[in-house]
Amino acid sequence: MNFDTVIHNGTLVTVDAGMRNIEKGWVGIQNGLIQAVEPERPEFSMPEAGWTLDAAGGIVMPGLVNTHTHLPMTLFRGLADDLPLMTWLNDYIFPAESRFIQPETAYWGARLACSEMLASGTTCCCGGYFLEDDVARAVTDTGLRAVLGQGVIDFPAPGVPNPKQNISHARHYADKWLKQNPLITPSIFCHSPYTCSDNTLKAAKNAADEKGLLFQVHVAETRIERTQSIQEKGVSPIIYLDRIGILDSNTVMAHCVWVDEKDMETMAKRRCAVAHCPESNMKLGSGIAPITAMREKGIVVGLGTDGCASNNDLDLFSEMDTVAKLHKLATLDPTTLDAGDTLKMATIDGANAIGLGDKIGSLEVGKQADIIVLDTRVPHLTPMYHPESHIVYSANGSDVRHVFIAGKRIVQDREIMTFDVKQVMDRVNSISEKIRQGISHGP
Amino acid sequence: MNFDTVIHNGTLVTVDAGMRNIEKGWVGIQNGLIQAVEPERPEFSMPEAGWTLDAAGGIVMPGLVNTHTHLPMTLFRGLADDLPLMTWLNDYIFPAESRFIQPETAYWGARLACSEMLASGTTCCCGGYFLEDDVARAVTDTGLRAVLGQGVIDFPAPGVPNPKQNISHARHYADKWLKQNPLITPSIFCHSPYTCSDNTLKAAKNAADEKGLLFQVHVAETRIERTQSIQEKGVSPIIYLDRIGILDSNTVMAHCVWVDEKDMETMAKRRCAVAHCPESNMKLGSGIAPITAMREKGIVVGLGTDGCASNNDLDLFSEMDTVAKLHKLATLDPTTLDAGDTLKMATIDGANAIGLGDKIGSLEVGKQADIIVLDTRVPHLTPMYHPESHIVYSANGSDVRHVFIAGKRIVQDREIMTFDVKQVMDRVNSISEKIRQGISHGP
Repeated sequence: MNFDTVIHNGTLVTVDAGMRNIEKGWVGIQNGLIQAVEPERPEFSMPEAGWTLDAAGGIVMPGLVNTHTHLPMTLFRGLADDLPLMTWLNDYIFPAESRFIQPETAYWGARLACSEMLASGTTCCCGGYFLEDDVARAVTDTGLRAVLGQGVIDFPAPGVPNPKQNISHARHYADKWLKQNPLITPSIFCHSPYTCSDNTLKAAKNAADEKGLLFQVHVAETRIERTQSIQEKGVSPIIYLDRIGILDSNTVMAHCVWVDEKDMETMAKRRCAVAHCPESNMKLGSGIAPITAMREKGIVVGLGTDGCASNNDLDLFSEMDTVAKLHKLATLDPTTLDAGDTLKMATIDGANAIGLGDKIGSLEVGKQADIIVLDTRVPHLTPMYHPESHIVYSANGSDVRHVFIAGKRIVQDREIMTFDVKQVMDRVNSISEKIRQGISHGP
Repeated sequence: MNFDTVIHNGTLVTVDAGMRNIEKGWVGIQNGLIQAVEPERPEFSMPEAGWTLDAAGGIVMPGLVNTHTHLPMTLFRGLADDLPLMTWLNDYIFPAESRFIQPETAYWGARLACSEMLASGTTCCCGGYFLEDDVARAVTDTGLRAVLGQGVIDFPAPGVPNPKQNISHARHYADKWLKQNPLITPSIFCHSPYTCSDNTLKAAKNAADEKGLLFQVHVAETRIERTQSIQEKGVSPIIYLDRIGILDSNTVMAHCVWVDEKDMETMAKRRCAVAHCPESNMKLGSGIAPITAMREKGIVVGLGTDGCASNNDLDLFSEMDTVAKLHKLATLDPTTLDAGDTLKMATIDGANAIGLGDKIGSLEVGKQADIIVLDTRVPHLTPMYHPESHIVYSANGSDVRHVFIAGKRIVQDREIMTFDVKQVMDRVNSISEKIRQGISHGP
């Protein structure tokens, strides 16, 4: 067989159903798909290929899948930390969004998010924000794969000043992006059950269902959200969403921190997925989502970074490290969420959560060639007994050396090949200068 | 004034008493000491210097201080994860230590630890292990600053087969290293109150006091340790140590997870310090040390990574990120442990905890020139509103570009200048091959 690209001399971590590792192996790519995942047997000779890449003994693995983020929020990275939640939201994030999120700024903020994700080994993200058309343009210009949800909320929002048009705007966005770029899957993202009426939620979910799209929503992030839902609606946020028909296998719910046994049973029955954002939930003092119990009930749980205003980075390697340790702490049991299960959360489980499990999330023949190569020849990854352990507990995003998406070389030797990342940083720096001045003069 | 080295065009984060930042500034170094920390005013002209380094707008800050680690344990990085504590200790760590820790392997494991710490911006560590003479040789060969404690335990240990000689061995080690290398301060490290008798603890503390050395000990790491202490000795581990006279301002206690109000009051009264190792405590399922309460009582708390068998890296940047988020979670309050306080824990508070607060831990005139420079021209550190926020929440060890210790250039443009790091990795890889074979054939 003749390949477009062959990656050889790698430590292959496939994340396939058998969690197979190949100590020294090669991967063949053709037409954007993985066509061979093989050990380099003694009789190995290099297959014919348009281009061969020597992985230099590094880890070759599926690209990471970030199941929940808000791309343009890179613009607010570190703008406001360590504040009470309502001060953070009302005095910084909401004013900054209403004053500084425009098509141009959303575009550059999203470009920066893509730059960061690509550089740190994330090849697919599931995002949701306003001005998602501009976000999708930005993502297209970088080569990242993404599920991108147009935000729906019952308040005036960037790009949708009249909330009565929030559903029609989302439909229009989805229709456009269903045929624009095979790497981008449109989606609809309702902000939350406390910022969207039941009519809005139902209409948005109907629109998503009509077009076969993923429906995203923030749910049960804080204790107060749960308390208020019970006070005002008589039931928890999850049960409320179930009663109005939102929960099914095309719904992914971000956070789900404050859920009880009955909530989780409902989630399992409806087969909806969860985007777990441990670092954001820690940083905002929200709590720990009980994902160990969720996973035991068969609920699909993917890993997400959330936006840069509450994390403050998009590095899924550090998120894996945190999540594996966090749930050992939560259970006071060091056997909880082992390295293999953690790696699955950040790859195949995440892909399943956002409806792409048949296409990405593992190194398997027939899947999209979304592949990353880590440089393991560094002190903090030496020695190496078990590659999954290093991926989860020792590596960080800066260890990513090469990135392929749909077979296309996006990052080579730590350099983004598809665009000028310095230009992106320059543009964002000039936007942030305006934000700094605007915010320091008071909301 | 004429300087040996001037670092200019930096964003200075001084961590001085006023937590002063200088948006664009320079640092002058002479005879290993910081002699100027100044803004670049409009009339700025470059001072005379033997060598000038352009920080390129990056963050210039004090090197990080790791208050608790075990350097040779890099050899066991990722050897055994996600196991019940006793399986991990009895089937992996103890057998691996007794079979594979020898002067030669301890030396190379420690060299690797230094390589990793230097590359990730740690300029001083407080370590404790057996064969500490070999560890001190390794550290000397790298240029790192360190407080290094000879391990004391009432069992046969590497280098001290007869535990009756544990104190005399430690005395001998301390005498030698008190005059060997100004960057190395010897110390005595009793493993714990459950592995050392009261006589051993008292004799070790006496030896440390006689020579004016820091005394290190693991205390109250696990719930079972506390329970057993109360059952067997009638009091908590902290109160037990206090009763036998171990607690004073020259004692640093690692972990202190399972402590109560009375313990903390005693710690505050005795002015002993704590080395907090959040990632290790999470990974082993031990719990959360109540450092917010400790700090409120005035107890000095430094940050530590612990050894590589339980973390699995020595990156204090990721440790800062984790600790700041962990205590927001523990208190469900996002204002807990803000970026500035977290940065202090990893610098000046850590320096104070190990008795070096007058020499290192901040950029101030008269202090040792232990300085690091971060490269902020990367997507995940763009934009930058507040440098402390980036240091704590967004940077990782790989963002460290230059490192100086006592004014000496140790890392330049991410390359270690003082030794061949590839040789270190090669030596460790050949040791780890034997460990892998030994362990896979069963303990």
